Amino acid sequence: MGPRNADPHPAAALAQRFEQVRAASTALAEPLSEADAQVQSMPDASPVKWHLAHTTWFFETLVLEPCEAGFQPHYPAYRVLFNSYYNGIGAQHARAQRGLVTRPGLAEVLAYRRAVDVRVLAWLAQAPAGDALNLLELGLQHEQQHQELILTDLLHLLSCNPLLPAYCAATAPAAVVQRDTLPLHWLEYDGGLVQIGHEGPGFAFDNESPRHRQWLAPYALANRLVTQGEWAEFIADGGYREARWWLSAGWDWVQALAIAHPLYWLPQDGGTWQVFGLHGALPMQPPAPVSNISLYEADAYARWRGARLGLALRLPTEAEWEHAVAAAVHEPPAPPAFIDGNARQPLATARRDGLVQAMGTLWQWTSSSYASYPGFKPWQGAVAEYNGKFMANQYVLRGGSFATPRSHLRVSYRNFFPADARWQFAGLRLAADRV
Amino acid sequence: MGPRNADPHPAAALAQRFEQVRAASTALAEPLSEADAQVQSMPDASPVKWHLAHTTWFFETLVLEPCEAGFQPHYPAYRVLFNSYYNGIGAQHARAQRGLVTRPGLAEVLAYRRAVDVRVLAWLAQAPAGDALNLLELGLQHEQQHQELILTDLLHLLSCNPLLPAYCAATAPAAVVQRDTLPLHWLEYDGGLVQIGHEGPGFAFDNESPRHRQWLAPYALANRLVTQGEWAEFIADGGYREARWWLSAGWDWVQALAIAHPLYWLPQDGGTWQVFGLHGALPMQPPAPVSNISLYEADAYARWRGARLGLALRLPTEAEWEHAVAAAVHEPPAPPAFIDGNARQPLATARRDGLVQAMGTLWQWTSSSYASYPGFKPWQGAVAEYNGKFMANQYVLRGGSFATPRSHLRVSYRNFFPADARWQFAGLRLAADRV
Amino acid sequence: MGPRNADPHPAAALAQRFEQVRAASTALAEPLSEADAQVQSMPDASPVKWHLAHTTWFFETLVLEPCEAGFQPHYPAYRVLFNSYYNGIGAQHARAQRGLVTRPGLAEVLAYRRAVDVRVLAWLAQAPAGDALNLLELGLQHEQQHQELILTDLLHLLSCNPLLPAYCAATAPAAVVQRDTLPLHWLEYDGGLVQIGHEGPGFAFDNESPRHRQWLAPYALANRLVTQGEWAEFIADGGYREARWWLSAGWDWVQALAIAHPLYWLPQDGGTWQVFGLHGALPMQPPAPVSNISLYEADAYARWRGARLGLALRLPTEAEWEHAVAAAVHEPPAPPAFIDGNARQPLATARRDGLVQAMGTLWQWTSSSYASYPGFKPWQGAVAEYNGKFMANQYVLRGGSFATPRSHLRVSYRNFFPADARWQFAGLRLAADRV
Amino acid sequence: MGPRNADPHPAAALAQRFEQVRAASTALAEPLSEADAQVQSMPDASPVKWHLAHTTWFFETLVLEPCEAGFQPHYPAYRVLFNSYYNGIGAQHARAQRGLVTRPGLAEVLAYRRAVDVRVLAWLAQAPAGDALNLLELGLQHEQQHQELILTDLLHLLSCNPLLPAYCAATAPAAVVQRDTLPLHWLEYDGGLVQIGHEGPGFAFDNESPRHRQWLAPYALANRLVTQGEWAEFIADGGYREARWWLSAGWDWVQALAIAHPLYWLPQDGGTWQVFGLHGALPMQPPAPVSNISLYEADAYARWRGARLGLALRLPTEAEWEHAVAAAVHEPPAPPAFIDGNARQPLATARRDGLVQAMGTLWQWTSSSYASYPGFKPWQGAVAEYNGKFMANQYVLRGGSFATPRSHLRVSYRNFFPADARWQFAGLRLAADRV
Repeated sequence: MGPRNADPHPAAALAQRFEQVRAASTALAEPLSEADAQVQSMPDASPVKWHLAHTTWFFETLVLEPCEAGFQPHYPAYRVLFNSYYNGIGAQHARAQRGLVTRPGLAEVLAYRRAVDVRVLAWLAQAPAGDALNLLELGLQHEQQHQELILTDLLHLLSCNPLLPAYCAATAPAAVVQRDTLPLHWLEYDGGLVQIGHEGPGFAFDNESPRHRQWLAPYALANRLVTQGEWAEFIADGGYREARWWLSAGWDWVQALAIAHPLYWLPQDGGTWQVFGLHGALPMQPPAPVSNISLYEADAYARWRGARLGLALRLPTEAEWEHAVAAAVHEPPAPPAFIDGNARQPLATARRDGLVQAMGTLWQWTSSSYASYPGFKPWQGAVAEYNGKFMANQYVLRGGSFATPRSHLRVSYRNFFPADARWQFAGLRLAADRV
Repeated sequence: MGPRNADPHPAAALAQRFEQVRAASTALAEPLSEADAQVQSMPDASPVKWHLAHTTWFFETLVLEPCEAGFQPHYPAYRVLFNSYYNGIGAQHARAQRGLVTRPGLAEVLAYRRAVDVRVLAWLAQAPAGDALNLLELGLQHEQQHQELILTDLLHLLSCNPLLPAYCAATAPAAVVQRDTLPLHWLEYDGGLVQIGHEGPGFAFDNESPRHRQWLAPYALANRLVTQGEWAEFIADGGYREARWWLSAGWDWVQALAIAHPLYWLPQDGGTWQVFGLHGALPMQPPAPVSNISLYEADAYARWRGARLGLALRLPTEAEWEHAVAAAVHEPPAPPAFIDGNARQPLATARRDGLVQAMGTLWQWTSSSYASYPGFKPWQGAVAEYNGKFMANQYVLRGGSFATPRSHLRVSYRNFFPADARWQFAGLRLAADRV
Repeated sequence: MGPRNADPHPAAALAQRFEQVRAASTALAEPLSEADAQVQSMPDASPVKWHLAHTTWFFETLVLEPCEAGFQPHYPAYRVLFNSYYNGIGAQHARAQRGLVTRPGLAEVLAYRRAVDVRVLAWLAQAPAGDALNLLELGLQHEQQHQELILTDLLHLLSCNPLLPAYCAATAPAAVVQRDTLPLHWLEYDGGLVQIGHEGPGFAFDNESPRHRQWLAPYALANRLVTQGEWAEFIADGGYREARWWLSAGWDWVQALAIAHPLYWLPQDGGTWQVFGLHGALPMQPPAPVSNISLYEADAYARWRGARLGLALRLPTEAEWEHAVAAAVHEPPAPPAFIDGNARQPLATARRDGLVQAMGTLWQWTSSSYASYPGFKPWQGAVAEYNGKFMANQYVLRGGSFATPRSHLRVSYRNFFPADARWQFAGLRLAADRV
Repeated sequence: MGPRNADPHPAAALAQRFEQVRAASTALAEPLSEADAQVQSMPDASPVKWHLAHTTWFFETLVLEPCEAGFQPHYPAYRVLFNSYYNGIGAQHARAQRGLVTRPGLAEVLAYRRAVDVRVLAWLAQAPAGDALNLLELGLQHEQQHQELILTDLLHLLSCNPLLPAYCAATAPAAVVQRDTLPLHWLEYDGGLVQIGHEGPGFAFDNESPRHRQWLAPYALANRLVTQGEWAEFIADGGYREARWWLSAGWDWVQALAIAHPLYWLPQDGGTWQVFGLHGALPMQPPAPVSNISLYEADAYARWRGARLGLALRLPTEAEWEHAVAAAVHEPPAPPAFIDGNARQPLATARRDGLVQAMGTLWQWTSSSYASYPGFKPWQGAVAEYNGKFMANQYVLRGGSFATPRSHLRVSYRNFFPADARWQFAGLRLAADRV
């Protein structure tokens, strides 16, 4: 059985959504040259061209192959070339070598996309039902995940170019300089025996279920994300040079790689900063949230800020986060959200009350190791490998970023990355115990 | 403030315990040549001589220096040389280079031990009270931790010698070949809102507190540890060669290092095994518990065994483990427990009913990432670095091993190692959800 | 002073040659997509786009900058971006990151080439004389070196693609299967006090001078290069699996990287071979010379073949090679030579007598470490770094390959690569002492 | 056939020499603890205990095994454990793991030495003749090589200890501070068709033969080695920070490892230096020769000093060195030479005229890559691996050091190490072309 979905998707509605999601991916690649789309800047990142092909491979292999009458592969070699990690399906091309495959070229990959789109839509026109539609929905959610990765991976590539080229020009009001910082205050939660996790008819990944009880001690969350201005204080106070703020593994990492600031911060003469992003290198904006930090940095910041404030500050657990946000958020955030809107960077908040920047601004590190929920059942078949096998040495991030498609956001959504990963659009929200 | 201990230790009783614990460390080194005590076989392990010196450094630096009138260091250079990781105290000698320090020699380190012992006992004779006694108790617990590490690190060193020398001869009944395997059955627990963690007068590390509530869904635990015979079935069935049983990071590890069996298993002609241990290389004993496996191996075994049995088997969480064991265990296990007894290897159980091998046989991997308990407060001062800063990328083990001193075992005790660590005396107990 | 050239180049003739050489580079890139031209497959190789830009940078920086009135850089950032290793000129972009610079794109680099070409030709139209013309000639020789590297680096990239795409289709007679192997025989040389090295009016690199005396003991050279068929015998006889044939460093290399055949040989079912090259993967051709081997392999083969023949076979020294070839070769070889002809792979020889395949077939490993000749004087100024600073841990290759432009070949030409380099078009010719 | 020796060694004289050489090795280890003798500080170095055992293994395996009636190995496992690199003899224990073998202990290794000594002497008492005696002589030369390595490897180990312990106290006049530096002047040589290499009855390694002709252009050599005072000028002038003095590979090495001074120089406050050696850390002595430098450093120094003097300075070739020294040296140097004398560090010269410090002070880097002489024939049998297989990526050093036994020195002796090796007692003598 594939991903379960109690809410049947009529094939016609799915077809419309399919066309929208597929077009959004292609649109992301439009400003790019073939070279931009080709290069892999590090083993953790993938070329844009690969993302475009791999998401297509997913539909071809997991939807068309079992469902289409008289299925023939578009091109047999793609089965290996664009498989990401599904051991159950067979061999994969080595991850670190994805950028070396210059042929098929971008035009051929776009043709591959179009050919598979035609076939999927033809199949949907036959009004299929059942598990196959669930796999199609999974393919769309999968593609939306890769839409964000297209941008994070591309930004890393552009950051390796000494010329620091922009992905796209900043447009008002996206890059407007925001002048005032929302004051930090604490929202208090009683905790108790709460429930988190997904339940009900909408789509969710297997790792979000089952909905289950957790006991939470009373806690408090910051009303907003940590800002760039606050982070500059951490740097200025020597935060990256004092072992006492850091986890041991974090301190080893800081020293081994000579880490001294967030990934895309560029020190300027005179002690100021520029921040590189999809709009290129722009002056640091104190009220905007800090992004592209590792869990190690987020954790050290919390300890440092707590010492300054005389509080024991920390990151929230994912249960604390979900419990608080579920109460505050009833729907995905209003624009700007990137792929649907026009913001290409995390923005300071316009709202002033309550829990702001909960979803759609930046992924927020939690202190929770990525693990299965009690009673977790992986999907069956090839997609059993989708989530469960990554449950080691990763930490959960919550909330989505400005680059996450709005229809892809959920309160129960669990993203996960290693503690030293910095190329994702990740920031932090402070938490504390209540005494 | 140092480690809290509501139960005051009269200095006289502590002095007696101090002499016992210190003597036990020295006794462990007695069968060793100066060369055996000198060599560091890998960066994760330390030389026996270093363990003997570092535990002494702890008393000198954290007890004598603040408490002894007119304190003078035994030898100033030892302050850096035998500091392990306390950044708050100053520089440390590089961990991976501990084995290169041939001078001071073993005799000088033993003299250092005796000199510090004399001074600590002289100080205790003045009937001190207060936090300093708590630090002394911490020093003893710290030394007991290193007693087990002396053996795990030494075993690793001996295993690198093609001659496979034994630490000590096997003596009856320690190495008796046990002939029958206790049948596996499941002990069921209702869960609910339980409490785990340390509370009360006895010593505990800061990471075991505070005692706190957790909600547990109904679950089951295996009555005993997984045996060597069962593990041989896993190997014979190709368990190390099939990706589907493994976490993704585990599979990468298996392939990169060509892992095919537990760390100290030695394949013999004819498909049989020898197992290297402190008694040297001996035939594999099917009823005895399997040891020296990584979390990755433990996790893969559970998945494989579950598929064979038609169950969804997994590792227990640390809360499940503690809740079950707290109900079953009222005191540390009877001998044989190693340092106090004469068993130098994990033994098959003699008891047949209930939850056996709960404590003092082998450390048991849990699925819980090592993290702070809700409301965790690290100790203050230099010992603040004792536990909290290691709370990343490690997994909790519970239960102690045959090499753990009996007075050092507690139900709430949390050991922790990375998912790929194999040189500890670690095995596994299976768990399952109840439906 | 720059490279010395006693023979003045009239500016007009140089302008014609400039246009020809520059056009040849661009022509090499014509079959490529922007992605093909972008990617760097390993740190030792460079992207084709980089080669096209760097050779242009050389003319801009070393010719136009000192000579052109009112010089302005085409684009200031290119000064760092396309500097290869000239420390004297300033910063360089990290070699291993050349492939990450997707902007400027290929079109902009081609525009850079055209702009510099226009400016160089305008300068030449003013009939300059003196050292600047020598630097221009050096720029052309430099560009011809990179023409061969464009192909070796590209072939390596294509070999990383599981689809094994061809750079260009094989055309008759280039890829004709040659049926018979020229028998091996030995050409004998008396040696004595000979002279090698460059002297006279034509261009040569500084490392080819001065012409100087060397004493040679009597020696013999094979009439032709070692063939693919002979190499297959070496493999079949276990040549890659027996330590006794190998230099110690070579044996370490074979074992660490599991080397079992030449770089581009592809084992087929049934024990046959395909060989990947610029025409794609084609059946191994027994009479054609073996290519893409390291010095270690060449040396091991000589020892193995010697043991089979009862002779002490070895590689020639560069003095032995030059002395023999100087006597045999009076002019560069007839076509096919690649860039000027249409052969895209090393061919079996059509000539049957004398010393064949001396030049223009494959580079030939010698046993000579790359070192300065007695009395060596590096060029002055920035180009002092051209050759001399590489005189460590490299071995000399002689003779040029099918991919070396004919006007770039000289008997005194010294190419050099580390002993484990395999991605160059390098083969071997056997040598022996005469007794 | 083993190493050839036209001059028959009467067995009785050899027995006496055998006892002397064997005793000298053991004497070197006398000041050491078992720990000192056990530890391997880096893969390139070996434990003293291993040296003592391996040299014994050589006699057991290459002399006793073929010659002794009813040969039985002292302990079969030693055959693998103490084989260094002879592939022909079978498996070897991994080089980098030599330090992990704590058993057999030092006492057992010394007993192994004594047992083999008794058996060798018993065999010699039977007045054997022929090749076996040549192998015995080779075994002695081999042991003398290891005597120097015992000291170089031990010094490296001691240098890794933050306490910087001395191997032995400095004794007058060995460590006397020498006050004046012999002025540098140039000795001129005409060169021409000279002969180098070994010929005649005395022992020599196979790589020193055959004696053969080489043509040398006129050249000059410095009368003495470069001094520590001169080297301090190189450092003070920024020699380690300017790329222009360095070979490209050397510059990469300097930057990657942050090299800023010779291996054992210790920067002191105030810009002065201490130099660590077998006598511990002592003040730098300006007139004494600089030691423990790499070829890269020696080569860079020559280029820098040449620029200061307006000369093209360089290292000598090995032929230039041997030709000059053969004319100057008629016998090994007078004491102090270390193992026979009492100097434990390189000393400034007492002689003032002619070519001083030619032999027995420090090994002297040459610019010659280690390669076979024309007509080289390796020994046959197991000892064929003695020298020839290392002829790649190494450079020749000449002259022996204060730690080389006097009876082991020869004008034709060729030592060899990689260009970045620094733990040998190596310095440099400058050379220049004569114009």
